[in-house]
Amino acid sequence: MTFSYAKDLTINIMKEKPSHSPIFSSASLREFTTAVFEYFNVSHYDAVLAADVLAYSDEHGIDSHGIARLKTYYELLKAKRINPNPQISIVREKASVATIDGDNGLGLVVGPKCMEIAMKKAKEFGSASVAVRNTNHYGAAGYYPVMALKEDLIGLSMTNTTKGVAPFLGAEKMLGTNPVAIAFPGFKEPPVIIDFASSTVSYGKIEIAKRKGEEVPSGWCIDKNGNDTNNPLDMIEGGALLPLGSDANGSGHKGYCLASIVDILSAVLSGANWGPFATPFAIHVAPPTKEVGKGIGHFFGAFDIEGFRDKTEFKKEIDEWIHTMRGTKPKPGAVEVLIPGDPERIAYQKRIREGIPVDKEVVDSLLIIAGETGIELKVQEV
Amino acid sequence: MTFSYAKDLTINIMKEKPSHSPIFSSASLREFTTAVFEYFNVSHYDAVLAADVLAYSDEHGIDSHGIARLKTYYELLKAKRINPNPQISIVREKASVATIDGDNGLGLVVGPKCMEIAMKKAKEFGSASVAVRNTNHYGAAGYYPVMALKEDLIGLSMTNTTKGVAPFLGAEKMLGTNPVAIAFPGFKEPPVIIDFASSTVSYGKIEIAKRKGEEVPSGWCIDKNGNDTNNPLDMIEGGALLPLGSDANGSGHKGYCLASIVDILSAVLSGANWGPFATPFAIHVAPPTKEVGKGIGHFFGAFDIEGFRDKTEFKKEIDEWIHTMRGTKPKPGAVEVLIPGDPERIAYQKRIREGIPVDKEVVDSLLIIAGETGIELKVQEV
Repeated sequence: MTFSYAKDLTINIMKEKPSHSPIFSSASLREFTTAVFEYFNVSHYDAVLAADVLAYSDEHGIDSHGIARLKTYYELLKAKRINPNPQISIVREKASVATIDGDNGLGLVVGPKCMEIAMKKAKEFGSASVAVRNTNHYGAAGYYPVMALKEDLIGLSMTNTTKGVAPFLGAEKMLGTNPVAIAFPGFKEPPVIIDFASSTVSYGKIEIAKRKGEEVPSGWCIDKNGNDTNNPLDMIEGGALLPLGSDANGSGHKGYCLASIVDILSAVLSGANWGPFATPFAIHVAPPTKEVGKGIGHFFGAFDIEGFRDKTEFKKEIDEWIHTMRGTKPKPGAVEVLIPGDPERIAYQKRIREGIPVDKEVVDSLLIIAGETGIELKVQEV
Repeated sequence: MTFSYAKDLTINIMKEKPSHSPIFSSASLREFTTAVFEYFNVSHYDAVLAADVLAYSDEHGIDSHGIARLKTYYELLKAKRINPNPQISIVREKASVATIDGDNGLGLVVGPKCMEIAMKKAKEFGSASVAVRNTNHYGAAGYYPVMALKEDLIGLSMTNTTKGVAPFLGAEKMLGTNPVAIAFPGFKEPPVIIDFASSTVSYGKIEIAKRKGEEVPSGWCIDKNGNDTNNPLDMIEGGALLPLGSDANGSGHKGYCLASIVDILSAVLSGANWGPFATPFAIHVAPPTKEVGKGIGHFFGAFDIEGFRDKTEFKKEIDEWIHTMRGTKPKPGAVEVLIPGDPERIAYQKRIREGIPVDKEVVDSLLIIAGETGIELKVQEV
């Protein structure tokens, strides 16, 4: 095993996308996605916005959160479990905070609009926090702080998600993979972009191991009885993921704490379904019989750098922070210490040049949509 | 090994404090601590405040952050490396944010005063964020959100600390153990109090293993060459702690991300010394030759629950969240899933009743202070 995260990433991109994966340009995926949302009478503005959120993931190598999820959005819209024309409303508000009801809209539309509200408030008051209820899966958490970067704001985003993770010492799914994202602008350097789930790994990594017939490392998951397991099937068939830190030796209670912060700020504070009651993002999973709120919840933050210090000074300091961390002596076997955001930037540079390889299985799901809607899917070499 | 965190804690309290540890009442420790700070002409108000921050740790079983640190504060005050009478000033401000210069005061005094400012702003605007530079070690991070609870606010606190942790894939100390704390009030239930460092374990756990002549688990630390080690001495002699998640399999890059968030918000945003340049909290460690800011940095947040939803509704929902998490089916061997804050509450109940056992080594350090200052140390049975 190599310790180079960047190298691993490049190898993974090559390994997991065998040459027969069709290559799409980002434009063709955006066009298809937009048309699919418009098919359900999502407005053109909202459809383009939702497609942009998904494209962010595909362009940055976050394959689990892009076009691969379109089929689920499609099915939920078709089953009328998501409202294509939400009337987003402010439920409660003070100067620098608000709670917003997403009217059961696409998280891909509700999310960016609520982040905009946080940004507007931050520009006026210096910082802002917006809790959102009655919303749905909002794509990659990192999209939202990147929105804020464009206006020289520090952006923060988190969301609760369908249950998948056991609390520390627990034997069953009670919390989502509940991610946190934040970004800091550099001056000459690209920004530091942080986006990570509070579980040790995502469900996607368990699925990949299952497809390959491989074992998973200890600390990733437990079986349906709460026992540690290396067999991905044990997790899939009624088991659970583990929180970051995994076990007592790894301080798994800290990942549980992190998931709890995200769950409470996103869902309890906003009035959404929290913990095990979070609305599932899957057509074949019925929503929990008990509701404790509306939809799932997000939490957005924005900070005006100028409220704290001169923004150019701050950005130059971030450059120096980046140089310092990159200059860390690497572990034996590692090439270098990376800066959060590097792996996604490496993927972006490759994909913008060479196109986006899409799993055969995902392409098949798109072809089903194309067949049912009559929308043309253009597989185009870049 | 048992999986019961609560049980472990109780056992540890009994195991690590053999019966010959002198027992102090909290009042006697507070009295001594206050007198020690006043010895350096810290005002009575500030000395009582600083003693209260330290007592919070001792009363709640956070032994690493209470009276055990008094000797270091004492030495730094004696060496005039900490200013006993800081003029805390607002350097920059917008409605809901501020940057504050702590004038190189005790973090135990600067911290609470800055948290007060964040709370005042949150009550006016709905939320607030305060970055602090030119400050020093501020005790347990959890003290600050507990301050906010008293006024029905959600409080957030983080601080950068002396370097001790390697970035993911790195072979040397570049970041502190950088903790995060936040608390949420319950209605009939006690609050959810979250306070955790972004490293897998604290330096204290390495020291305990060394004293006992025991090995440490894999994933806790590396040696001076960046190699994994189970020998605590390897870490102590030039090695480093690992970030939460530890390695590639455990997603150690996530702990690195968390430490980076804390470092940037606390120190880069405020203009303090960040990363490896953070001022050491130790008399025998010279400050780094390069300064990139002033002192270390804290970051405080406060949120008015009423800005988001009715606070009684919120508290009742937190009660239900607590019951739900506590009701999780436990892992085989575990007694129950705990709520963040439970271990500290268990310790508090025991210590208020039975007194605070203090390590012989710590008592010796207090006796040196008593000898040098003439302040009486009252070892009193409760």
